[in-house]
Amino acid sequence: MDRLAQRAKSTARLLAASSTKAKNDLVLAVAAAISKRKDAILAANGQDIAAVKGRTTAFVDRLKLDEKSLRKVIDGVRAVAKLDDPVGRVTDFTTRPNGLVIKKMRVPLGVIAILYESRPGVTADAAALCLKSGNACLLRGGKEAIRTNSAIADAIEEALTARGLDGAVGFVRDPDRAAVKELLQLDKYIDLVIPRGGPELTVMVRKESSIAVLSHDKGLVHAYVDASADLSIAEEICFNAKVERPGVCNAMETLLVHEKIAKVFLPQMAARYEKAGVALRGDEKTRRIIKNAQPATEADWDTEYLDLILSVKVVASYEEAVAHIAAHGSGLAEAIVTQDVALGRRFQREVDAGAVYVNASTRFTDGGEFGLGAEMGISTQKVHARGPVGLEGLTCEKFVVTGSGQVRDSRA
Amino acid sequence: MDRLAQRAKSTARLLAASSTKAKNDLVLAVAAAISKRKDAILAANGQDIAAVKGRTTAFVDRLKLDEKSLRKVIDGVRAVAKLDDPVGRVTDFTTRPNGLVIKKMRVPLGVIAILYESRPGVTADAAALCLKSGNACLLRGGKEAIRTNSAIADAIEEALTARGLDGAVGFVRDPDRAAVKELLQLDKYIDLVIPRGGPELTVMVRKESSIAVLSHDKGLVHAYVDASADLSIAEEICFNAKVERPGVCNAMETLLVHEKIAKVFLPQMAARYEKAGVALRGDEKTRRIIKNAQPATEADWDTEYLDLILSVKVVASYEEAVAHIAAHGSGLAEAIVTQDVALGRRFQREVDAGAVYVNASTRFTDGGEFGLGAEMGISTQKVHARGPVGLEGLTCEKFVVTGSGQVRDSRA
Repeated sequence: MDRLAQRAKSTARLLAASSTKAKNDLVLAVAAAISKRKDAILAANGQDIAAVKGRTTAFVDRLKLDEKSLRKVIDGVRAVAKLDDPVGRVTDFTTRPNGLVIKKMRVPLGVIAILYESRPGVTADAAALCLKSGNACLLRGGKEAIRTNSAIADAIEEALTARGLDGAVGFVRDPDRAAVKELLQLDKYIDLVIPRGGPELTVMVRKESSIAVLSHDKGLVHAYVDASADLSIAEEICFNAKVERPGVCNAMETLLVHEKIAKVFLPQMAARYEKAGVALRGDEKTRRIIKNAQPATEADWDTEYLDLILSVKVVASYEEAVAHIAAHGSGLAEAIVTQDVALGRRFQREVDAGAVYVNASTRFTDGGEFGLGAEMGISTQKVHARGPVGLEGLTCEKFVVTGSGQVRDSRA
Repeated sequence: MDRLAQRAKSTARLLAASSTKAKNDLVLAVAAAISKRKDAILAANGQDIAAVKGRTTAFVDRLKLDEKSLRKVIDGVRAVAKLDDPVGRVTDFTTRPNGLVIKKMRVPLGVIAILYESRPGVTADAAALCLKSGNACLLRGGKEAIRTNSAIADAIEEALTARGLDGAVGFVRDPDRAAVKELLQLDKYIDLVIPRGGPELTVMVRKESSIAVLSHDKGLVHAYVDASADLSIAEEICFNAKVERPGVCNAMETLLVHEKIAKVFLPQMAARYEKAGVALRGDEKTRRIIKNAQPATEADWDTEYLDLILSVKVVASYEEAVAHIAAHGSGLAEAIVTQDVALGRRFQREVDAGAVYVNASTRFTDGGEFGLGAEMGISTQKVHARGPVGLEGLTCEKFVVTGSGQVRDSRA
């Protein structure tokens, strides 16, 4: 493990100095190598699938690759070559009275470790994003996908070796959990760890790592329909945010409704939800309006259902809605529906989340929808990168200072 | 500890919503409260000083406050009120084809924990920087300064309570080390931990913390004098970087000299250093030119002397200098002296450090010198904030998205 990380670090310097064109060519070569070896990759995937017989369909679906889904993975890698390169961007910072010209320059982080679970496509797209942003990386996938991931990693290594960059993508083949714990202590080589998986993985990484972590906790997302809302807009947004794809992190889990419009809005909304098979859990005020809603318990306000279940609360004021969000939100995405522009702005200022919406569905919280191209994930933390993380989140800025012989007199 | 952190978190929301004027008034009120209680603070400091009899002069100096140094602390707090407020700054990000307007808004982090050692002035300036940037904070100073810090904390609390913000600065009075370990686990309340002290403190915090850490490891700073340098500029910079204040992190520890100019440059530089009492440790090539230099061991290239000692190496090329810096630099600051503009730019691109200088002393690596006003420290990490950390490093950006009823169709 130490050797793998050390190789990544020494190759990182070469990558950091590579031109955008050289990095694009490298990413395209990775795509070509995966494409060339696609039969071997699909065969390896067949073995992985055979070995997990008896697991849930959802589990097998995440693990499975076929011609079509592998082509999507390859297209995803190719698309990364087309993204803008954030590295090398220089922005003015200040010119000091002594004539020092201080600028900021965007540079790669160095070595990024990515820990993920069953989806083998991550091996290719995480490698592509790291290479394009000038970073070396260490990848560690789920043990059930070990054969598929190894076959993809072999293809990537072939493309790297042809360009003298072998080791820039280090794939951890050791299936033992101890290997991960060892990796999380290698702060002399690794600059950032990104866990991409369930909350257990994230909590473990945060606890064990002496390296900086970029993570996604969970999505406990609210939509608040204010008394000033256009109710037809509210209905579309609340329907979309819950129903369009309930199993993802940016789907709504709790609906907050101002009491002034609850009697009009909730019955029409409930009818719409009922047709879509959404089970409602309401507080007392809600249940006075929607008789067949189950009672919501305290635990409901903190539960990420990831399913066709919605908790509903009627609030007496904007302030009560915002306080509820502050107490229960996970900081991923929050929305208000209102025709009052000033109130919308206030919500955007006051609500603490990676993405704060006025009159739009929280389902847009996604790198592609934000125009970032591919994304490495959605950060629910506040430090380093917040919200959808694209290439820029894999870089940092350093100060570059140009003088003409200035020296300091600190006693002056 | 849990209660202290919980109070900080609940007050953080009020602070985040405060106007710049309200925060400035609060910071000035803190300064006034410290000024009003100055006799009590100086008396407490006298007790702390009496209790550390027998410690080194340097230690006692760091701990000691008198009328003059306390006034400087108070002036420092007042100066924070004058700094630009980064909170609330909105920058355009993108407008999407579907009409969604996506911007970024700068907001406070929330709750920041700061762990520091003997200097009691940190209690006041860390609190001021956090309050001005809209953050609540938890402060934990060295146990030798406990009486002084408590007296300063009492003054701060008085100013906060008068404005209904009690708890916004939580001072940890428990002298037990276990209290720190407990604090480092409170990731549900605390958003960032900043250790301000020696390497032992930083390493311990990185290891124990499940919270994001902003840290300063050490300063192993190089200056490289290229063959293309103006040697009189080189002499002034190399003298200043080593001698002006050798005990600080941005002072130079290793001088790299191109072999083409070494025979001319090193003798004149060595004479200048000798007069200033700098002890030189050189590699073989250096010792052929400076006969009385001690031999440098491998350990020297990695030693932060913080003293009038300098290791010197003669290199055969720019590439050898940059490779030496990559192997031994701590990522704080690095400098090149050259009249070749293209080479200077290349050095700024290729060298991986928080501040990369062309033709200026690394001693400028400081929040004040960068125009940031006061600083919370200098980050040697790459994640979140790099180089001198001012108010902006205590904030983050969130996305604010404004629509007119947009919903997502992910199958489209």
